[in-house]
Amino acid sequence: MNDKQKKPQKLKARLPRGFVDRSAADIHATNEMIAKIREVYERYGFDPVETPLFEYTDALGKFLPDSDRPNEGVFSLKDDDDQWMSLRYDLTAPLARHVAENFNDIQLPFRTYRAGYVFRNEKPGPGRFRQFMQFDADTVGAPGVQADAEMCMMMADTMEALGIKRGDYVIRVNNRKVLDGVLEAIGLGGEENAGRRLNVLRAIDKLDKFGPEGVKLLLGEGRKDESGDFTKGAGLNAESIETLMQFISADRYHYSVDMDGVDRALQDDLTIAASENALLSQLVPNDTKARYDNDGLIRHWGSLVGGSAVGQEGVNELDQMNGLFRAAGYGSKRIQMNTSVVRGLEYYTGPVFEAELLFDVTNEKGEKVVFGSVGGGGRYDGLVSRFMGQPVPATGFSIGVSRLMTALKNLGKLGQDDVIAPVLVTVMDGDVESMGRYQRFTQDLRNAGIRAEMYQGNWKKFGNQLKYADRRGCPIAIIQGGDERAQGVVQLKDLIEGKRLSGEIEDNASWREARVAQDTVPEADLVAKVKEILAAQAEDHRRAKDA
Amino acid sequence: MNDKQKKPQKLKARLPRGFVDRSAADIHATNEMIAKIREVYERYGFDPVETPLFEYTDALGKFLPDSDRPNEGVFSLKDDDDQWMSLRYDLTAPLARHVAENFNDIQLPFRTYRAGYVFRNEKPGPGRFRQFMQFDADTVGAPGVQADAEMCMMMADTMEALGIKRGDYVIRVNNRKVLDGVLEAIGLGGEENAGRRLNVLRAIDKLDKFGPEGVKLLLGEGRKDESGDFTKGAGLNAESIETLMQFISADRYHYSVDMDGVDRALQDDLTIAASENALLSQLVPNDTKARYDNDGLIRHWGSLVGGSAVGQEGVNELDQMNGLFRAAGYGSKRIQMNTSVVRGLEYYTGPVFEAELLFDVTNEKGEKVVFGSVGGGGRYDGLVSRFMGQPVPATGFSIGVSRLMTALKNLGKLGQDDVIAPVLVTVMDGDVESMGRYQRFTQDLRNAGIRAEMYQGNWKKFGNQLKYADRRGCPIAIIQGGDERAQGVVQLKDLIEGKRLSGEIEDNASWREARVAQDTVPEADLVAKVKEILAAQAEDHRRAKDA
Repeated sequence: MNDKQKKPQKLKARLPRGFVDRSAADIHATNEMIAKIREVYERYGFDPVETPLFEYTDALGKFLPDSDRPNEGVFSLKDDDDQWMSLRYDLTAPLARHVAENFNDIQLPFRTYRAGYVFRNEKPGPGRFRQFMQFDADTVGAPGVQADAEMCMMMADTMEALGIKRGDYVIRVNNRKVLDGVLEAIGLGGEENAGRRLNVLRAIDKLDKFGPEGVKLLLGEGRKDESGDFTKGAGLNAESIETLMQFISADRYHYSVDMDGVDRALQDDLTIAASENALLSQLVPNDTKARYDNDGLIRHWGSLVGGSAVGQEGVNELDQMNGLFRAAGYGSKRIQMNTSVVRGLEYYTGPVFEAELLFDVTNEKGEKVVFGSVGGGGRYDGLVSRFMGQPVPATGFSIGVSRLMTALKNLGKLGQDDVIAPVLVTVMDGDVESMGRYQRFTQDLRNAGIRAEMYQGNWKKFGNQLKYADRRGCPIAIIQGGDERAQGVVQLKDLIEGKRLSGEIEDNASWREARVAQDTVPEADLVAKVKEILAAQAEDHRRAKDA
Repeated sequence: MNDKQKKPQKLKARLPRGFVDRSAADIHATNEMIAKIREVYERYGFDPVETPLFEYTDALGKFLPDSDRPNEGVFSLKDDDDQWMSLRYDLTAPLARHVAENFNDIQLPFRTYRAGYVFRNEKPGPGRFRQFMQFDADTVGAPGVQADAEMCMMMADTMEALGIKRGDYVIRVNNRKVLDGVLEAIGLGGEENAGRRLNVLRAIDKLDKFGPEGVKLLLGEGRKDESGDFTKGAGLNAESIETLMQFISADRYHYSVDMDGVDRALQDDLTIAASENALLSQLVPNDTKARYDNDGLIRHWGSLVGGSAVGQEGVNELDQMNGLFRAAGYGSKRIQMNTSVVRGLEYYTGPVFEAELLFDVTNEKGEKVVFGSVGGGGRYDGLVSRFMGQPVPATGFSIGVSRLMTALKNLGKLGQDDVIAPVLVTVMDGDVESMGRYQRFTQDLRNAGIRAEMYQGNWKKFGNQLKYADRRGCPIAIIQGGDERAQGVVQLKDLIEGKRLSGEIEDNASWREARVAQDTVPEADLVAKVKEILAAQAEDHRRAKDA
């Protein structure tokens, strides 16, 4: 090692790869969002329960320490007593551990919610971070699909509580058992076909990527990609392929039955984006464009699963859920039966559901795309049982907070509660007596509930103080020099009025004339005068909004 | 490896050592607390900024990766690109990184706050956890002690916003420079005495543990503990020891000058707990029981630092801060000069301060002890500069949220905003039509803003449903069997009235008589009737509180 290498490098300030700092605007928006979501969950009778960020790696279940350092997807490290611990990658596995560990003290059904950070040790990309926030709700100890139905309605209510219009979102519902039933009906049931079933699942999962023709190839002999590489197919016959294609396309083409009486004119094709229409015309012959509502879909699926017991069970469950939705007034404009909910299927044991946003956004490549999923979940009857000698049914769902926030920003649904910047008490003289006065003004304002601060930088350049007030968006600056001090008065600068005057708006002239950008009052009147100016600014703001 | 070892162990559900799950009550209490603290910080003109939980290990500064796996006090792991990352152990080091990384975009002074989890890879003990929450406020780019003074006033206001009475807390203020000055005055200045200065600091830090006699021994030749082990002392002469003992004891004995005009009768010895009085009588000869207010203390310290320039600078800074406190009306009952604030001294460069709670609590050994510190901070002019080519002054403080919550629970200051448990809609029949009705009742209640849930467990044993409602504290149960359904009515059980009737209280008889524990109303009146019962229960609750 030579001298150059030994030389200490200059310490560089940098965020770890895949992590972000959060600005005041982001934090306010997240808090606003979380408060709204929490309000819905509380109203549904859920209570908060939280777990720490670490779990023993084996308790997380999915990622067992089979190598020296089990970093496959999770952040793991060895505890002092040589046990592997991992940062949680979701909020469901830790909840399962919590319930199993405290099973004797917990009153079932256990209805809880939690918001918190989860971690993925993955290659970060645009919009993909290694730390992000989820907001989950779960019911443990609830065997019936009424618990799953409740989750779907709660997701729908949450979307609307966040200001997302009916029609701009939909909750899509599927059932793991229905797909199992379809697979059984085409002869892929039983342990011996596990491998082929997995191939079929993977093929279906490629629908968005390769289109229906590509999926058909993958379900049959196989598919050669552009580079010439060949992927062996699942080897199904033409009839099986046709059944599967009907199944996965049925729900993509449906009629929205709105039971809510809102916007009936918008119902037709409401949830079919243009890009999907193109796909559909390839999937379904034009003359068979039968339109399904949830009831129709369920009947259609019933015919596809044929004599499969598990498939029929799944269809019956969906039928029951649909009955509950109807009774509670949730039409298919809010909650829709849909076979395209495939993700995470190996994890779930019954109904699965997903909240999707239907409006278009522009992605990083400049393309218009449907915003898509902002959360999902389903029934996971096996997760708590892993720790127990008995079955423990459970269902729940998870919202991707950061992703949903991006969506809400797109819709302009966040940050309406603008935070007013503090009143700035400027510093003209640095002696203890003068500083004491500035400090007292500041404290008087704060005691009256007004955001205020005394300038804390180097006060000697007064221009810096006004520049600071301007950049920070301070509404008022308080000034007291030697002359004012001698007279026992303070000067107030209305910084927003000042800005507005230089911008000069013609209308509302009489209102504007009634206000001045600068004023001098006795010290004793400071708080009252500040209140008066802030109220006038708020009125201005209101008028500007209405205009 | 034999067969037994290969057999998979039963998966055990257990929390990692040193971590805890949080209950609904704890989460509600924390949220309530954080909202109150945030309100104070916002009023002082601070805005939120947050950093992720990971930092590159070198950016944390204190714990550099000198071994293969740097786990000394922090949780660390290697990133895919072979860089060490650590979970933050406080919120100050990450803020310093944030400011340095975004220095060109940040408007100074930068006034921000943040609440978040921090991690310590230490041996957990009773009440000592490896994940806990801190709530910090910092001003970066503020060179003058007016920024430190503001921190102290904000800490005091925070304590009162949380409901802690004046006199039950105090903000103690010291200055690193004063102690440096005293050490210089007794001949321990300069680079060559760095080692001895550290020994002196460590000896002073043991005051609470070994008492003044123990500290004297550690400042002199050394001290033999009960097991016979000998700790070598700092080797000071008698005169130096006397000066230091006077310095560290001066503040422990003072007269509280209350500028707030509140509770003047309580001023005397207000902040001296009984246990401290015993200590004092050993420290200070009876006839010299001079009582100091903040002004007196500062004069006294001035004499102790003698001709030391840095010491005098420290005393002057405290004098300026005291002037600001006085001017803003903060007397020594709220903010006190105090030499016992020693912790974390290696980290700070000027004023240091600590929020202490003065009331007694019973510790895990059953002893009465003063609750003590719930937060602290000080000036850290070197922390941001590490990354920069220029000096960046900064000051801030941190509140230990979990610890403060324990204190507030002790005082009964949390959880007043009781959360009402949900109304339970019971399930008598399981057919889709009946379930649909129950679901509709539930949804109607929720839409009216009332917490409600439909029973999600196995409904067939009705007793389980009422037991569930009882354990959960549900205020009302809604019941509809076949007969009621046929008549289009629902039965409402007032569960709290029912409980109270079985408890039978004599007074308020007329009020009680006006209410019945059970009622039957048409389905259409369900929501109105539930609202009526909830209102009556709230009135009951209010009367019980007033009684």
